[in-house]
Amino acid sequence: MVLLEFSMSPTDKGESLSSYVAKILDYIDESGVTYRLTPMGTILEGEWDKVINVVTGCFKLMQQDSRRISVNLKVDYRAGEESRLESKIQKVEKILDKKLST
Amino acid sequence: MVLLEFSMSPTDKGESLSSYVAKILDYIDESGVTYRLTPMGTILEGEWDKVINVVTGCFKLMQQDSRRISVNLKVDYRAGEESRLESKIQKVEKILDKKLST
Amino acid sequence: MVLLEFSMSPTDKGESLSSYVAKILDYIDESGVTYRLTPMGTILEGEWDKVINVVTGCFKLMQQDSRRISVNLKVDYRAGEESRLESKIQKVEKILDKKLST
Amino acid sequence: MVLLEFSMSPTDKGESLSSYVAKILDYIDESGVTYRLTPMGTILEGEWDKVINVVTGCFKLMQQDSRRISVNLKVDYRAGEESRLESKIQKVEKILDKKLST
Repeated sequence: MVLLEFSMSPTDKGESLSSYVAKILDYIDESGVTYRLTPMGTILEGEWDKVINVVTGCFKLMQQDSRRISVNLKVDYRAGEESRLESKIQKVEKILDKKLST
Repeated sequence: MVLLEFSMSPTDKGESLSSYVAKILDYIDESGVTYRLTPMGTILEGEWDKVINVVTGCFKLMQQDSRRISVNLKVDYRAGEESRLESKIQKVEKILDKKLST
Repeated sequence: MVLLEFSMSPTDKGESLSSYVAKILDYIDESGVTYRLTPMGTILEGEWDKVINVVTGCFKLMQQDSRRISVNLKVDYRAGEESRLESKIQKVEKILDKKLST
Repeated sequence: MVLLEFSMSPTDKGESLSSYVAKILDYIDESGVTYRLTPMGTILEGEWDKVINVVTGCFKLMQQDSRRISVNLKVDYRAGEESRLESKIQKVEKILDKKLST
């Protein structure tokens, strides 16, 4: 399974980007993919082809509005079917035997 | 204020990295910096010098254990004193008028 | 046109990764896509679908050897057909009126 | 030694960013740090404290002009004193026994 975090923003639209970001988050939310929104990006979980297709959909949507776009993307793939959206943090909290800020 | 997301891991330790990651998260938690742990990294908030110092502390800690280390870091700086750890997500939810998965 | 820089490496193979990296660079070189190798990654240039397909091919190749893989990817899209592999650096050198280290 | 690649840009200045990027590249060039400019970023080589100080200098310079700044940064640390700016590519070319596009 792949954990993929990405952020995507127009770089030709000035300082406030919430409306452009909202449009692609709505697309992600409607796509049915498993995701978590963080203050710095969106984390998708699934097979490579599935999560990359969602990112491609977001790019094509943003391309309709913007002449210049910046994308950052990070993948952590681990063989196996188990979801790690919760378990990565839980493992660390268990080792430290304390709750962290999440 | 700076939002800084980073991940740091040894690349000479094999497949399971939780114990190395736990050590630096404990350091962050004890440092007093405002932070949020996500499944893909840690988000710090504060002035540039403060958050960069925390990342430097983490690196020097991991350097004691590892001969090869990989770091990824992303900064979103916006002039002003307001915290955006909560407000970035809230803005997007308000535009879409729905709750997103966080 | 999209400029896409990425790096991809197994994280379960210890400190020396050249042989795994070589395998995907051979794949890129044979694919016919326009690319530049740097000390920190590989830059592809082309339409979104084309460059993302090359990255997908690399991932599937590395998946044959590795149980855990890390990918970092950064895209700079600008509307238009002009290549920027050379021109981005030249523009900056022209503004500064000096040669930079490339 | 650390290889650090980064890119830094204002996100409140519209589509064309060369003049802002030129200013920080001039700073890097004057700083005396070992660096290479690529189409997607700048690679610094040196000890952690030295290269992080250069990035901090760039940020403070850009902060004078911009209300919103985006930074991406990637570090590959390997214990030892040897420069890898040239050798990482050479190793891969040697394994493949062919010249790659650089």
